[in-house]
Amino acid sequence: MSPTDFPAPSASKDDLEEGAVFSPRFDANGLVTAVVTDAADSTLLMVAHMNAEALALTLESGVAHYWSRSRGAIWKKGETSGNLQHVVEMRTDCDQDAVWLSVNVAGRDATCHTGRRSCFYRVVEMLDGVASLTTDGSVPRFDPETVYGPKNSA
Amino acid sequence: MSPTDFPAPSASKDDLEEGAVFSPRFDANGLVTAVVTDAADSTLLMVAHMNAEALALTLESGVAHYWSRSRGAIWKKGETSGNLQHVVEMRTDCDQDAVWLSVNVAGRDATCHTGRRSCFYRVVEMLDGVASLTTDGSVPRFDPETVYGPKNSA
Repeated sequence: MSPTDFPAPSASKDDLEEGAVFSPRFDANGLVTAVVTDAADSTLLMVAHMNAEALALTLESGVAHYWSRSRGAIWKKGETSGNLQHVVEMRTDCDQDAVWLSVNVAGRDATCHTGRRSCFYRVVEMLDGVASLTTDGSVPRFDPETVYGPKNSA
Repeated sequence: MSPTDFPAPSASKDDLEEGAVFSPRFDANGLVTAVVTDAADSTLLMVAHMNAEALALTLESGVAHYWSRSRGAIWKKGETSGNLQHVVEMRTDCDQDAVWLSVNVAGRDATCHTGRRSCFYRVVEMLDGVASLTTDGSVPRFDPETVYGPKNSA
């Protein structure tokens, strides 16, 4: 399918919320939010963004593609690291401005660019009135510098 | 805590990704993405957005607050419906532009404004080359018109 195949969102709330037409509501930057969880154990792996092209590529290939806001380019997740995301199921939410991908991760089963399985490895807690971060102890499953090159260039 | 208590994000990628300082990276609209899952069974319930005030209110009260982009106001989720979200754990991701709330939902355990438990009640599937939506069969747990008033006003 072509990215242009997504119809414009209906002005009818009923159509948007209860209908069978997938008409993603892209934001001012042409993006929808994508939430990615592991198909086997529901772990939240990452949050990313998709433009129409990334969405079309994902639906056609069954492998997750995103829009990299930092690089301004289509991003086939795992192309460099081997940790491709095979989509088991895609869902959308009530107002169609977000999608949920349930995936199986290939390679080292590591989604985060730090090498960890999930990007959400730190807990936010109030300590003495200050919001602070505590790691959950998860460790990298690959060496980012080996995979992506020297630090801060990824 | 005050919304102004969140420090500006460090320019150091190491600090941002490995540090103990919570310095949310608000976007151009002053928002971070919030992913909300059920603490008991990990079901993805909704995706929303938080500004600094919503984040501070959530951390202080233990009850999820968001920024309603449609209403342009702080939104104490469940204030009208009774389906308040009690936060069991909050996490942030590697680059601190998203948070993950693991919650227990009060009231009718229904997060979506359509009355359903989750906002993600439709599967996106390719049917004859067209991306189409199929409902997962989940039914409303409350009547939105009774709770929110006449349709299309919520």
